Amino acid sequence: MDFMNKSFLLDTPTAEKLYTEFADISTVPVLDYHCHIDPKEIYEDRKYDNITQLWLGGDHYKWRQMRTDGIAEKYITGDASDKEKFRAWAHTLQKLIGNPLYHWSHMELKYYFGYDGYLNEDTADYVWNLCSERLSSGDFGARDIIRRSNVRLICTTDDPADDLRWHELIKADDSFDVQVLPAFRPDRINGIEKEDFADYIKKLSASAGVLIKDLSTLKEAVIKRLDHFEANGCRVSDHSMDYVCFERVDERETESIFEKVLNGELPDETGVRKYRTYMMEFLAGQYSKRGWVMQLHYGVRRNANTAMFDMLGADTGFDCIRSGAPSGQLVDLLDALCVSGCLPKTVIYSLDPNDDRIIDSIMGCFQQEGIRSKIQHGSAWWFNDNLTGITQQMKAVASQSVLGDFIGMLTDSRSFLSYVRHDYFRRILCRMIGQWVEDGWYPYDEKRLGEIIKGISYNNAVDYFGFDLEKV
Amino acid sequence: MDFMNKSFLLDTPTAEKLYTEFADISTVPVLDYHCHIDPKEIYEDRKYDNITQLWLGGDHYKWRQMRTDGIAEKYITGDASDKEKFRAWAHTLQKLIGNPLYHWSHMELKYYFGYDGYLNEDTADYVWNLCSERLSSGDFGARDIIRRSNVRLICTTDDPADDLRWHELIKADDSFDVQVLPAFRPDRINGIEKEDFADYIKKLSASAGVLIKDLSTLKEAVIKRLDHFEANGCRVSDHSMDYVCFERVDERETESIFEKVLNGELPDETGVRKYRTYMMEFLAGQYSKRGWVMQLHYGVRRNANTAMFDMLGADTGFDCIRSGAPSGQLVDLLDALCVSGCLPKTVIYSLDPNDDRIIDSIMGCFQQEGIRSKIQHGSAWWFNDNLTGITQQMKAVASQSVLGDFIGMLTDSRSFLSYVRHDYFRRILCRMIGQWVEDGWYPYDEKRLGEIIKGISYNNAVDYFGFDLEKV
Amino acid sequence: MDFMNKSFLLDTPTAEKLYTEFADISTVPVLDYHCHIDPKEIYEDRKYDNITQLWLGGDHYKWRQMRTDGIAEKYITGDASDKEKFRAWAHTLQKLIGNPLYHWSHMELKYYFGYDGYLNEDTADYVWNLCSERLSSGDFGARDIIRRSNVRLICTTDDPADDLRWHELIKADDSFDVQVLPAFRPDRINGIEKEDFADYIKKLSASAGVLIKDLSTLKEAVIKRLDHFEANGCRVSDHSMDYVCFERVDERETESIFEKVLNGELPDETGVRKYRTYMMEFLAGQYSKRGWVMQLHYGVRRNANTAMFDMLGADTGFDCIRSGAPSGQLVDLLDALCVSGCLPKTVIYSLDPNDDRIIDSIMGCFQQEGIRSKIQHGSAWWFNDNLTGITQQMKAVASQSVLGDFIGMLTDSRSFLSYVRHDYFRRILCRMIGQWVEDGWYPYDEKRLGEIIKGISYNNAVDYFGFDLEKV
Repeated sequence: MDFMNKSFLLDTPTAEKLYTEFADISTVPVLDYHCHIDPKEIYEDRKYDNITQLWLGGDHYKWRQMRTDGIAEKYITGDASDKEKFRAWAHTLQKLIGNPLYHWSHMELKYYFGYDGYLNEDTADYVWNLCSERLSSGDFGARDIIRRSNVRLICTTDDPADDLRWHELIKADDSFDVQVLPAFRPDRINGIEKEDFADYIKKLSASAGVLIKDLSTLKEAVIKRLDHFEANGCRVSDHSMDYVCFERVDERETESIFEKVLNGELPDETGVRKYRTYMMEFLAGQYSKRGWVMQLHYGVRRNANTAMFDMLGADTGFDCIRSGAPSGQLVDLLDALCVSGCLPKTVIYSLDPNDDRIIDSIMGCFQQEGIRSKIQHGSAWWFNDNLTGITQQMKAVASQSVLGDFIGMLTDSRSFLSYVRHDYFRRILCRMIGQWVEDGWYPYDEKRLGEIIKGISYNNAVDYFGFDLEKV
Repeated sequence: MDFMNKSFLLDTPTAEKLYTEFADISTVPVLDYHCHIDPKEIYEDRKYDNITQLWLGGDHYKWRQMRTDGIAEKYITGDASDKEKFRAWAHTLQKLIGNPLYHWSHMELKYYFGYDGYLNEDTADYVWNLCSERLSSGDFGARDIIRRSNVRLICTTDDPADDLRWHELIKADDSFDVQVLPAFRPDRINGIEKEDFADYIKKLSASAGVLIKDLSTLKEAVIKRLDHFEANGCRVSDHSMDYVCFERVDERETESIFEKVLNGELPDETGVRKYRTYMMEFLAGQYSKRGWVMQLHYGVRRNANTAMFDMLGADTGFDCIRSGAPSGQLVDLLDALCVSGCLPKTVIYSLDPNDDRIIDSIMGCFQQEGIRSKIQHGSAWWFNDNLTGITQQMKAVASQSVLGDFIGMLTDSRSFLSYVRHDYFRRILCRMIGQWVEDGWYPYDEKRLGEIIKGISYNNAVDYFGFDLEKV
Repeated sequence: MDFMNKSFLLDTPTAEKLYTEFADISTVPVLDYHCHIDPKEIYEDRKYDNITQLWLGGDHYKWRQMRTDGIAEKYITGDASDKEKFRAWAHTLQKLIGNPLYHWSHMELKYYFGYDGYLNEDTADYVWNLCSERLSSGDFGARDIIRRSNVRLICTTDDPADDLRWHELIKADDSFDVQVLPAFRPDRINGIEKEDFADYIKKLSASAGVLIKDLSTLKEAVIKRLDHFEANGCRVSDHSMDYVCFERVDERETESIFEKVLNGELPDETGVRKYRTYMMEFLAGQYSKRGWVMQLHYGVRRNANTAMFDMLGADTGFDCIRSGAPSGQLVDLLDALCVSGCLPKTVIYSLDPNDDRIIDSIMGCFQQEGIRSKIQHGSAWWFNDNLTGITQQMKAVASQSVLGDFIGMLTDSRSFLSYVRHDYFRRILCRMIGQWVEDGWYPYDEKRLGEIIKGISYNNAVDYFGFDLEKV
């Protein structure tokens, strides 16, 4: 087969047919319900001088592979020129056989820059020039990329204390009709063990206009911020945590823990777990009442390399999988929320791929009538966002749950070119289902196959989050 | 390929040939050494009015998927009509692409009802009528289904206090020649931490005719029940446990723990583990002496959803995988049994598929001369009883152990139609081996291939359990 | 396809082409950087009377499968004749469908004995005679096998107290030009909890010519031995451990722990972890300074069957996977070594295949400029050294890291015929990459594919370890 041609990953006629009819992004748009792009850059319609700015400006996925390949930091985050950095990346890329970055990079070159060849040391200069030319053509700002990617809605990731002014400005701007909504990420509210917790509480007080001096005013302030997010169209929260913890606790105990910390004491480990459990129950209740979706991302060990963290800070490529999450505590939390009647729609993501089938078995215990797959197993993520990981996650969902109700892909990205990951995912989906149909494991029933594939690609997310979008 | 035709899952000519010659159920019968069907229903030759009674009466696998799909409980376990429930199931089934229920359901429709099409909302009424007609034909009782499935022997799952009267009645009934044997499941004897433990001990006393007032009388009573089971043809026990525990303990300590509990005290966690270890050693010794097989099922968290448990009780679809079993304690138990010379034939099943390869490596340490694979890795089970799970388990066995000695499949089911799972398993087996042969990884040596496939399908279990059956 | 013909495992034309051009052992030699063969047998050019001596003399992989198959110990390690043992092995082998031993055995028969058929009970006598004839031909000593296998360099595994005289003798022998280098395996130095620790320390004292009476003299002695190994060409160490532990500790505390143990006290568990952490940091610093590679092998439970250990001793086939390694402590150790600037090149191997993707995510955090993949994920090992395990490990590396920088295969074997495992590995590598190219996932770019495949097969290890060898 030709290198990454239009049938890329579609290895059967049925796969190709299903993709063309029900998954092609030109007809089935993109709904990116979880990413890390900066709304300011959308509002200001950020422009790029060259491909290095777009590709290597903040993409720690690529940085990490360059470091693995022995490239000097100078050519990664250092003071080498953009062109030198690009060449260094081309040097590493050619060895990344089997890595999703190899595919994503070439998909991006093809879809956004019309380059059908491959990138290696020999072609690096040609590709550099081609991209520079294209970028200077005047229709290559952040907004152009989003529009060209047929994106209908984006959820960014935002701190509760954020004023959301960029979201407001984008909404008020009639020249751009893609919805850019905030997502509520209260990690710092839960980060009671962090050094800057007290500072953060001050920041939150100011943002909410509520002086936080005890648990009750904390909750009052959080509700103010939830209201503000809701007013800006927010439908989803996101929690990043080492693991999902659960430790039975009551209000008085939590008050006492919180007040001690406000007074400068350090909480012990049990105290941290109790505070977090209490706050998760409080927040889940709020999400449930508002019809929001709660996302739980866990299984990450952040900033594993102290020396590099001291040099470059967070989110620079030094995180890894935290294995051994106690799945029993996840069950306990979901059960407690169920008992108290405040379990919101929940999407569970673990970075440890060994958790995949465990998650599917757990979520099957907490579904609820009237909502299609109220508890969802989130799409393969970060280190698992590749052919093996995506296929494994979907087969786990299919084997134990209702694949037809799955809400599908998101980018989780900091880059405006990452919408190709939706295409990557849809090709893998159609590949998998196409093979099943060709093997006679599911009938070629266009009506149901269309519903399933369009559902996973787009429609299910519209329904699940309750966004103001038309289904296709 | 046509939808689920006669070559279903048999993707190479060799796979098809092997299946036809060595695995087809019409010539190689079914030995179902572990299931949960009710011997009373066999004795009474239970009849069914419609397909809902057969399919949705007690099948929590299906209930779970309907709940996931947002179906109201009314249509699952509630008071909707049987026909409404069937339609609700059809609504969910059409989205279960990639789920084993999709395949099992259609295999059951084909094999038992002669329906070659597929079931969805459009065909639901037609299928309902077809099944009703067939069920009213007069030859569709539990016994007919068993006979038609070419089943030679069934092991049910029975509490030690059970009087086994239905087994006795079936045996005495000359009109039915399928062996229906009890299996000894002493979970309640081991459940020292349960609220109803003392009540159970009274029940056991009555059943054994031995007043249990200390450890010694407990063992006396248990031996009486083992004798009774043995007299009824029992060859196998079954233990369901959170995880396999091991905590060194002696007789005096166990006596003290047991007597305290009889006197109304609650045991602590160490006490529970010690009591269980002691009883496992005692029971294993009994099994070993009698030549019985010990099955260990672990890795389950039962009744995870308290609210639904309170409403519907146990075994209604709210269980999940318990991850993180301490495999070291399994090793310790097997080692201790080996040292004391009382390790019985043992089949190990974990619900956590991450344990698969661990189990194969452990069992390789405890095999014994004169018995082919004395320790067995049990077939993929429950949440893993699907194409991925079955293939993974068999590849793990093949990679680390002697696949040719594997005792193969069981249904673990509460439904009389589940014998198709044996066919499903055999197709996957022939698919896997057929591919290996076509790839030149194993020679096309009919003699050995026949021995291997018939062995795994039937003969190995006959030998291993020592049933009174002829091999094929 | 014919049984294990020249295209064995090479299922596409591209796979076959890549193998022929870039991986065939006749043109791309073998570098076996980790094995357990005895240098004395190389020096003395050990001869064999029959295939049983070569195959079953010390191969606990085969013993284990024979025990699983119920073969009596007499025919495994007992006093049956060599011919009887061979027949017993043939009896078991024919059932080992899907097991790597099935393939390795037939590859060995083909490559070394010119036998193209298959081995089973019917052909056992023929094969026995063929092998005996071939072995008596005069060119079938240990050295002949090594030469015929196109091996350029072998690293054995040696205790620090070993005098390395066989390595010296081999080096001095001009008639044999394959490099046979020692590897430094200080497990007994780290085995502070072992009964024979004090005895070992005396042995080490004698070997180093340093009276070890405290931590400082221990380190002095170890440095002397490191110097001796280095003088004999050593470039690599190897650590076998239950799991990688990390417990913060300082020098004074370690001194105290060590001295207590020298005085006959038993260390507690924390003391063991502290001593080990200290020694790992000390040794890693030494390796780093010398440019050596540190291998970490973990996840093994050794001698799981006490009764058989008492009868047959260690390394006789009674080990298994130790699951649940705390990956966080591995991160902590690598981080601490990074902070102190003494992280050497490190190869990480876990016997638990569930750790594969965890390891790849961790190693991505500790790479260093100027070295291609300074931290490596070691090749699939022992219970995972099979088609599933090898493919899984390489896909994990490819998905998360730079596959093109991987140092590839080793035998880890005690047998001189095991070099076929390199061929087995290369075929799986070419199979995987060949499929990717045929699917259009990577271009057919001969230059890069050649670099990648020759790199993984041979060249990368030359560079990584810094051996005095020419690349191909």
